[in-house]
Amino acid sequence: MAKNAKTGITPTREEDYSEWYQQIVRAAEMAETSAVRGCMVIKPWGYQLWENMKAGLDKMFKETGHVNAYFPLFIPLSYLEKEAEHVEGFAKECAVVTHHRLEDNGEGKLIPTGELEEPLIVRPTSETIIGATYAKWVQSYRDLPILINQWANVVRWEMRTRLFLRTAEFLWQEGHTVHETSEEAWQETKMILDLYKKFAEEYMAIPVITGEKTPGERFPGAVNTLCIEAMMQDRKALQAGTSHFLGQNFSKASEIKYQSRSETIEYTWTTSWGVSTRLVGALIMVHGDDDGMVMPPRIAPAQIVLLPIIKNEEQKPAIMAYCQKITDKLKQQTVFNRSLEVEIDTRDINTGQKSWNWIKKGIPIRVEVGPRDMENNSVFIARRDKGPKEKFSLTVDEFIQQAPVMLEDMQNQLFKKAKQLLDDNSKQIDQHDEFYQYFTAKNKNKPELHGGFAYSHWCQSEKCEEKIKSDLSVTIRCIPFDQPAEKGKCICCGKESSKRVVFAKSY
Amino acid sequence: MAKNAKTGITPTREEDYSEWYQQIVRAAEMAETSAVRGCMVIKPWGYQLWENMKAGLDKMFKETGHVNAYFPLFIPLSYLEKEAEHVEGFAKECAVVTHHRLEDNGEGKLIPTGELEEPLIVRPTSETIIGATYAKWVQSYRDLPILINQWANVVRWEMRTRLFLRTAEFLWQEGHTVHETSEEAWQETKMILDLYKKFAEEYMAIPVITGEKTPGERFPGAVNTLCIEAMMQDRKALQAGTSHFLGQNFSKASEIKYQSRSETIEYTWTTSWGVSTRLVGALIMVHGDDDGMVMPPRIAPAQIVLLPIIKNEEQKPAIMAYCQKITDKLKQQTVFNRSLEVEIDTRDINTGQKSWNWIKKGIPIRVEVGPRDMENNSVFIARRDKGPKEKFSLTVDEFIQQAPVMLEDMQNQLFKKAKQLLDDNSKQIDQHDEFYQYFTAKNKNKPELHGGFAYSHWCQSEKCEEKIKSDLSVTIRCIPFDQPAEKGKCICCGKESSKRVVFAKSY
Repeated sequence: MAKNAKTGITPTREEDYSEWYQQIVRAAEMAETSAVRGCMVIKPWGYQLWENMKAGLDKMFKETGHVNAYFPLFIPLSYLEKEAEHVEGFAKECAVVTHHRLEDNGEGKLIPTGELEEPLIVRPTSETIIGATYAKWVQSYRDLPILINQWANVVRWEMRTRLFLRTAEFLWQEGHTVHETSEEAWQETKMILDLYKKFAEEYMAIPVITGEKTPGERFPGAVNTLCIEAMMQDRKALQAGTSHFLGQNFSKASEIKYQSRSETIEYTWTTSWGVSTRLVGALIMVHGDDDGMVMPPRIAPAQIVLLPIIKNEEQKPAIMAYCQKITDKLKQQTVFNRSLEVEIDTRDINTGQKSWNWIKKGIPIRVEVGPRDMENNSVFIARRDKGPKEKFSLTVDEFIQQAPVMLEDMQNQLFKKAKQLLDDNSKQIDQHDEFYQYFTAKNKNKPELHGGFAYSHWCQSEKCEEKIKSDLSVTIRCIPFDQPAEKGKCICCGKESSKRVVFAKSY
Repeated sequence: MAKNAKTGITPTREEDYSEWYQQIVRAAEMAETSAVRGCMVIKPWGYQLWENMKAGLDKMFKETGHVNAYFPLFIPLSYLEKEAEHVEGFAKECAVVTHHRLEDNGEGKLIPTGELEEPLIVRPTSETIIGATYAKWVQSYRDLPILINQWANVVRWEMRTRLFLRTAEFLWQEGHTVHETSEEAWQETKMILDLYKKFAEEYMAIPVITGEKTPGERFPGAVNTLCIEAMMQDRKALQAGTSHFLGQNFSKASEIKYQSRSETIEYTWTTSWGVSTRLVGALIMVHGDDDGMVMPPRIAPAQIVLLPIIKNEEQKPAIMAYCQKITDKLKQQTVFNRSLEVEIDTRDINTGQKSWNWIKKGIPIRVEVGPRDMENNSVFIARRDKGPKEKFSLTVDEFIQQAPVMLEDMQNQLFKKAKQLLDDNSKQIDQHDEFYQYFTAKNKNKPELHGGFAYSHWCQSEKCEEKIKSDLSVTIRCIPFDQPAEKGKCICCGKESSKRVVFAKSY
């Protein structure tokens, strides 16, 4: 596209990536801010996307033996305090309920009354409240493992918020499992990470790298935190999911004990893991373009939209009937193991406006149906992964037959493109100067784009990790699993190192 | 069953209905109390039931043109105040967030700090916060109708709580729609009530009566509240769902205005409607018996359980393989438009204990599979709607073929039984003394059971409604839709009346 061509979203990614993000969320009708600080409204198009993502994940959880349950929204303050690192990690940003009624103060103003004996925290995460229940459920090794997941809303009082990426309230799933042995809990932690990777890559078309966090980046109270990290189009990293091996820390805090096979009383081993609506932010930043959102067909809120072109009222009934017939046939087709999701846009606005609407929302396939198409028993098709004006004609039968293949192909293309971005912007760096250059040099055409993922050696000292963070705003995203043993020198201090880690700027 | 026969649940319904309820919820492993006052833990068996109910309702909402979205958990105090009746209805029982962090008070004790400028209410219902967003979305008649539903948790600080029936936090769906005309909003209100009735009867096997509430029983701020009411086994009524016609009350409070077809600026007409996890309480009280829960097959968390009977370890692999084969075949069968839900109970405990476990949980069909059954290529079957010892043998092929029919039959039988209870305990009463007698006379054998639904005349005065409530703890459940016009005299004061209403004790 020529430099000054009109795009669906202003500014473009090149011009101002951060503002582009705000605009695309709005233009794609996915979410908006609310009157409540940091809390977003997830609009129907964004929520249906989340529901599709939920369905995919939920199926994977159930196939691996997990069941869902629901635990209280509120956590007594004293529960949160049970694990020292945990409370420290969350105390600074939590919504505190202190009263349970409102009363007129005598001057016509409602004020909180009925003070609670103990303040309640709106859950920022549920390890402590779920742990208290598990302590009652677990008596013997026969009660183990417990493999439970919860779909819920959580609240973390963030000061700087951004739709989907960082909001005070967000939706997520949190798995909480209890095991007899350390080994079994560790296997669960890793298995879930693999599951998250599979979900990100196969459903969201987002390639991720897997690894473990450095001690400083772990979940508060965890022995180890594993993560999947994805690369956004501005080359920054986004942590897309975490799986925590909690050791016996939370079992000790919540007294989750069991009688072992040898009849001794032991503390259990627990894990927790979660992904959130933040993934929607990742999806936008990986696949969105200057015309709007691009939805991976496998989780798209809808896959195909029919746009009837009606020039006069007389034609309307016939064209509508024709669209309905095509829709019915499409819905009988399956892709990704479910029926095609098809909509007809019957709104009384002009076709250009309609078409741009759907481009911005990122629907995979748009189908224009006018009087001439009807005469020829054909349809006029546009794919969201091609330019907005690239369209082609197919007979109705051809289209119905090819639609599933087209959607699968788009899913694959999106993944490939994202993988290319990741590969093109990942680099082994061994020289200190090159490393600093990598994260500071600006690309003239793309002022916000510099750096990417640097695979460099690190001596494992917190000092070096901190120095790089303070010099460059670059953090260690993870110590990746898939790397050969290799001797080298710390990129910061030059001391000996036995493995590379992934450095990047991040969300 | 003989008077002192051992039952799964102690006490029986006859002995102490209220305590029976508490025990059955626990024995069926559906929910339990938590450390947080009034907040329950919904256990996996109860939660899967709720998920199945959600799926059924969600499908019906989408088929009638609704979409899902998600709005903030918190409501600014000033929003709640916008509708006078509304705030009065909820101010006395709401969780108030006043601070956004915790800090050490210098003596090692964490205390709430970071006081909010304006307190936030944890949503007890979302008319006001959703209304504020709708006001931004609606400009013209072209933006209407808005047909949105939300699945969410809400909090009402109830002082006396009971699992599922009345909890501080509960799960529900709340529909919020906006319309151009009063007529259209009223049609929506009625359509949703019919949808609720259909869901209660066809999915939950609970017959309901439909009607409208008296002014005193309406939702705070509503112009009219329609409801479905069900009869529990103790003859009390339970309000199982409500659909509110809000007129322009909330549009005026939230300034939801639109430019009409004649280019004038008008307030919109809105509705709201909801059902909650309270329905699970209704399900238990309608279908549960003295041995435990009885799940209607259409929404049962699982429909069939296979119980391998293993006398020695050598037999185990063969019997397990046999069970797996049967399970795989059963899962290929469909009932109620989905695959059969089958579990194998592989726990290492005795078969009697296992069997009672599943009886209490109310699974529709139990299948015992021992070495002899395997030899005969047969299975030993028990239906939950028959006595716990009534079992019969079928060949595996017969069973696989008949299972869907058996489940459909059970669903129908459960509905019939509940309908019989409703019919047997509904009565037209025209005499004052008989009315008082009806609600006070005790049945010797069933001390808690007296009365039922009385269809009696009412003069429409609040005074008579209040008198009956204070004398008998009996309320007007609804002014039913399906009744012939009929002149009569108010059961309380004797004044003229043009229609009967339904009186009952209630939950």
